[in-house]
Amino acid sequence: MIRASIVGGTGYTGVELLRLLVLHPEVEVAAITSRSESGLPVADLFPSLRGHFDLCFSEPDPDRLAESDVVFFATPHGVAQAMVPEILKRGARVIDLSADFRIQDQQLWEKWYSQSHACPELIAEAVYGLPEVNREAIREARLIACPGCYPTSVQLGFLPLLENNLVAVDDLIANSASGASGAGRQAKIDNLHSEVSDSFKAYAAGGHRHLPEIAQGLASFAGKPVGLTFVPHLLPIVRGIHSTLYATLLDTSVDLQALFEARYADEPFVDVLPAGAHPQTRSVRGSNICRISVVRPQNGDKVVVMSAIDNLVKGASGQALQNMNIMFGLPETLGLEAPPLLP
Amino acid sequence: MIRASIVGGTGYTGVELLRLLVLHPEVEVAAITSRSESGLPVADLFPSLRGHFDLCFSEPDPDRLAESDVVFFATPHGVAQAMVPEILKRGARVIDLSADFRIQDQQLWEKWYSQSHACPELIAEAVYGLPEVNREAIREARLIACPGCYPTSVQLGFLPLLENNLVAVDDLIANSASGASGAGRQAKIDNLHSEVSDSFKAYAAGGHRHLPEIAQGLASFAGKPVGLTFVPHLLPIVRGIHSTLYATLLDTSVDLQALFEARYADEPFVDVLPAGAHPQTRSVRGSNICRISVVRPQNGDKVVVMSAIDNLVKGASGQALQNMNIMFGLPETLGLEAPPLLP
Amino acid sequence: MIRASIVGGTGYTGVELLRLLVLHPEVEVAAITSRSESGLPVADLFPSLRGHFDLCFSEPDPDRLAESDVVFFATPHGVAQAMVPEILKRGARVIDLSADFRIQDQQLWEKWYSQSHACPELIAEAVYGLPEVNREAIREARLIACPGCYPTSVQLGFLPLLENNLVAVDDLIANSASGASGAGRQAKIDNLHSEVSDSFKAYAAGGHRHLPEIAQGLASFAGKPVGLTFVPHLLPIVRGIHSTLYATLLDTSVDLQALFEARYADEPFVDVLPAGAHPQTRSVRGSNICRISVVRPQNGDKVVVMSAIDNLVKGASGQALQNMNIMFGLPETLGLEAPPLLP
Amino acid sequence: MIRASIVGGTGYTGVELLRLLVLHPEVEVAAITSRSESGLPVADLFPSLRGHFDLCFSEPDPDRLAESDVVFFATPHGVAQAMVPEILKRGARVIDLSADFRIQDQQLWEKWYSQSHACPELIAEAVYGLPEVNREAIREARLIACPGCYPTSVQLGFLPLLENNLVAVDDLIANSASGASGAGRQAKIDNLHSEVSDSFKAYAAGGHRHLPEIAQGLASFAGKPVGLTFVPHLLPIVRGIHSTLYATLLDTSVDLQALFEARYADEPFVDVLPAGAHPQTRSVRGSNICRISVVRPQNGDKVVVMSAIDNLVKGASGQALQNMNIMFGLPETLGLEAPPLLP
Repeated sequence: MIRASIVGGTGYTGVELLRLLVLHPEVEVAAITSRSESGLPVADLFPSLRGHFDLCFSEPDPDRLAESDVVFFATPHGVAQAMVPEILKRGARVIDLSADFRIQDQQLWEKWYSQSHACPELIAEAVYGLPEVNREAIREARLIACPGCYPTSVQLGFLPLLENNLVAVDDLIANSASGASGAGRQAKIDNLHSEVSDSFKAYAAGGHRHLPEIAQGLASFAGKPVGLTFVPHLLPIVRGIHSTLYATLLDTSVDLQALFEARYADEPFVDVLPAGAHPQTRSVRGSNICRISVVRPQNGDKVVVMSAIDNLVKGASGQALQNMNIMFGLPETLGLEAPPLLP
Repeated sequence: MIRASIVGGTGYTGVELLRLLVLHPEVEVAAITSRSESGLPVADLFPSLRGHFDLCFSEPDPDRLAESDVVFFATPHGVAQAMVPEILKRGARVIDLSADFRIQDQQLWEKWYSQSHACPELIAEAVYGLPEVNREAIREARLIACPGCYPTSVQLGFLPLLENNLVAVDDLIANSASGASGAGRQAKIDNLHSEVSDSFKAYAAGGHRHLPEIAQGLASFAGKPVGLTFVPHLLPIVRGIHSTLYATLLDTSVDLQALFEARYADEPFVDVLPAGAHPQTRSVRGSNICRISVVRPQNGDKVVVMSAIDNLVKGASGQALQNMNIMFGLPETLGLEAPPLLP
Repeated sequence: MIRASIVGGTGYTGVELLRLLVLHPEVEVAAITSRSESGLPVADLFPSLRGHFDLCFSEPDPDRLAESDVVFFATPHGVAQAMVPEILKRGARVIDLSADFRIQDQQLWEKWYSQSHACPELIAEAVYGLPEVNREAIREARLIACPGCYPTSVQLGFLPLLENNLVAVDDLIANSASGASGAGRQAKIDNLHSEVSDSFKAYAAGGHRHLPEIAQGLASFAGKPVGLTFVPHLLPIVRGIHSTLYATLLDTSVDLQALFEARYADEPFVDVLPAGAHPQTRSVRGSNICRISVVRPQNGDKVVVMSAIDNLVKGASGQALQNMNIMFGLPETLGLEAPPLLP
Repeated sequence: MIRASIVGGTGYTGVELLRLLVLHPEVEVAAITSRSESGLPVADLFPSLRGHFDLCFSEPDPDRLAESDVVFFATPHGVAQAMVPEILKRGARVIDLSADFRIQDQQLWEKWYSQSHACPELIAEAVYGLPEVNREAIREARLIACPGCYPTSVQLGFLPLLENNLVAVDDLIANSASGASGAGRQAKIDNLHSEVSDSFKAYAAGGHRHLPEIAQGLASFAGKPVGLTFVPHLLPIVRGIHSTLYATLLDTSVDLQALFEARYADEPFVDVLPAGAHPQTRSVRGSNICRISVVRPQNGDKVVVMSAIDNLVKGASGQALQNMNIMFGLPETLGLEAPPLLP
């Protein structure tokens, strides 16, 4: 039995970790922390968990946390980097769902997140937790930097093209859209139902924090820097990210459908749809699956890839558990087998 | 391993049965029928099930169906009553999710459903599949009439009051609201997104088919006929039924909170919320739980009960599996343990 | 040309007043105040108003406000009662959209709103701005207390029954549901899209602040105190209130359809639907109309009335303008003729 | 007073024409046709119009229609081309909201719409009704081909760039998303609330009928053929189209914000937002406005344009009225001044 603790349990990725862990046969939740809600039973805040957890939120205490085998950080950026060293020192492993260790270039991180990095010495050690790319490194990692939600959907979509040098790397476009849960459980007017519902918009078109993370990943696939335009949009749905990716083919003779199917044939959580199908976010709702379609419109030199994930699962808490399964030598799909909720 | 077949697999209760059965360790799906989609892989119609089922839809054939241990009817009313005798004759047991065998008074059924009953000889034998009331009879039943979605939510809310003769039975009011999936997967203009979204309305205020079913149940709890006003409403959500029930107390000295908690203490799928809480449909989304609150406004002689279920789970396919578990001597919660999807 | 000012312009009723005033040929907006946004152009906060208003938000200043002919308060309760005396003293008239002057019993107000009333001397003078009941008093009023959103929908539904002593007054039930804009433009977690969307719940079943306001109105129609149970619910829509009202008929011989049609025949903003129809909130979206249906289920002794309004229009800003039109001798429908937005 | 008739009044563009015409002081609706609903009062089908129209649907009769000054076709493609010659012959003018006369290349039209064109002789005469481009030709036109919804949003976004030869024309990308009302008021399972709500997907990525229409327009702006990739998406909202457009700049020294503001300075229905703002669909809901933002991410050589319209207004019925105003010498904004409905 793996003992797991969760730092930052009052947000959507925290409650999602708990939801998924109910179905995981090899994990016991030892602690879940929240400074603001310390002492409150978890099920009082999240009635969906009534009957599943007797836990109360507790103050984050490195000693107590480090009694766990693994500590998940489901916190805003800046929190994990301050606590991770103490936890690693005590022998627990860490899976960080925040952005703290995702970007290998410290200065780049500090530029986009507008603060100094509190733990630069661990950046190089952190393993970027995208199993479809880094599975072997994940096995041995002490510290996992779980990919962001947009970055997961974009990287999985571009991966087969870039690995095979099939597209012009200086002109990649990622048009993505996320459900409102991606903005977190924070009291902001912009996230009110009356502001988001029955509407749609782009945001941060001039530059979003996930841009450098995505560009770093794409460059590693391509073996060289890439030129990426990334525009996120806000969807009036709760869960789901959909990315529509555009690139120019260098070689139009390749069977893209076959290429994508082959690349992901052994991946338990990437599903390449049949030619002609389009992924929809509801078809992955609540599950760790990423569904992908690839199309070459009018058989021209443009390729369009569409990918759909649940931002709280494959885009956050589910991917965190997938990493944990790999780290602890468990079957990779353990606890993640439940089908999506459709309709 | 129980072999199960599903008649009428293209509707929302059919796909929901499949979704839930993926997580059930003791059931194998032998066949799923659809006249219109015969030959089509199930996962082509419902991409959420890709990787979970290789089955194709097939023509309904009593001989083949009866090779199963249990046959679920997820069909419009009128279908089961025509096929059930042949299936029972061959030795399989039947769980009917439709309205065909819910009402014990044949004439009443025929009046509300505007057709002759094709199988009146089995009406008396059919067991009304509300485990919280009929658990013992369900164990031995050959034919289960699964309760309707509204009736489940209303009956579970009124049950403790009526069993204990605490309210005036001639003046019960059930104000219920259902998500659009309750209208089924049918191509009707009234169910279009552009018609339902961002709106709310009552419908069938003059008389809805679930009225006689609810009244029959409430009368059985009370031991005498009841006077019930039932008004259903259409919610712009996919899943969920919420009922707000009103009655006049005959005795205001009773501790209603304690009464409800005691009545449902041993029920795995009924959760009485703490005093002051209100159930919300999302807190049961995707699960078989019915959450209930009871309140006496301003300590007067009115009692208000609120109940929330997922219409496709406790209101249909989940309750069907709960019945199946009881019928086959399995733990009642088997395959139904996954927490609700929130947010 | 009437000069109008708005105090509290950053909320949903403030922007709705502006939206409606664009179409009003006889009103000029002189000022719109907001302490927090002072100096900001209105159209920067509400891009829907770009091109329609050059105004900036300004600090509330009684002298400047009183240069207007009429001052609207679109503020939380407690604000108007502190400023109204100074404005009336200077000769302007006031239409208060908040709850400050709605309840004639000062102690009752103070109990439900948990604060002392700052201006008890004006309570008696304030005219409750429900034109269908108080049209004559509104004409001469200096101070209008605009009805709440729930109270408007419930009172218009019960009015014909109570005026004619047709129902038992000790057992009235109002089951109401409101869109999320009713909670205002406030940064609260409970109002986030991810909390409200795709869900439904009751709230404040034990007692809501609109209860005493509704009960006061119903008692005035009946000529005696009433017993009312009122349960509000939160809808995952932006605009709209729907009330389903239940009462027991004292006389079942009355033609209720004819009664309702006659009562509202001359009312420009109350539309009694044909027998068998049900009002839906989208059919009044953006308009000042209240649509009503009345039904007697199974021809029994219960009457069910359904009413639908847009909570921001007939439930707030539209009704405020209707009052203003009456107060200034204008055609009552001036500026309020635009049809609802459907779909 | 202009007499107008509407052919095909039961769809969303038909009811939207009626909604808008209520506020138009110079138009009288003479007839509205529907074969299936002939004889039914319009307000029975669309309760939002109760009190505004006494009209009943009637059979389409060219003689009667041609008694009008202008006939709107709010019909599926194929209908107008069969009836327009008879109407023009009788002297009425025609504004066709369908796709019948939008594409000047007959063969191209026939390829994409999979049928022979029934009226090729009028294709050349038809004026493409995009006032921002064709205002002068519209004035004298007998037959207007109203632009499609996606084409309006994409063309207005690319127009300033292409007119000024600022971008590479062989690599234009239009990533668009539409509310469900764009699919019309048709009973299809794919358009059900339970299928569309709380989800998002691309569709027709391999080729959508609006592609040749958009490409034709863009080519006319550029003065040469363009290479366009167009991927439409389905939003879980009722109204609204948002397009995110990508192109590569040939010249990065141009002040794009100033260019866009200058191009649309005199256009009453195109609003260029301040730098840094993003258009949202709700900010144009119910209005004829197109809001546009332009951004150059990280000051690179890519330009991103975002545009938002209401698909039923600027994307259909509002633009039709704008054309009508131009054709009949009326102020272009007449009847179209009402602000958007926000929230």
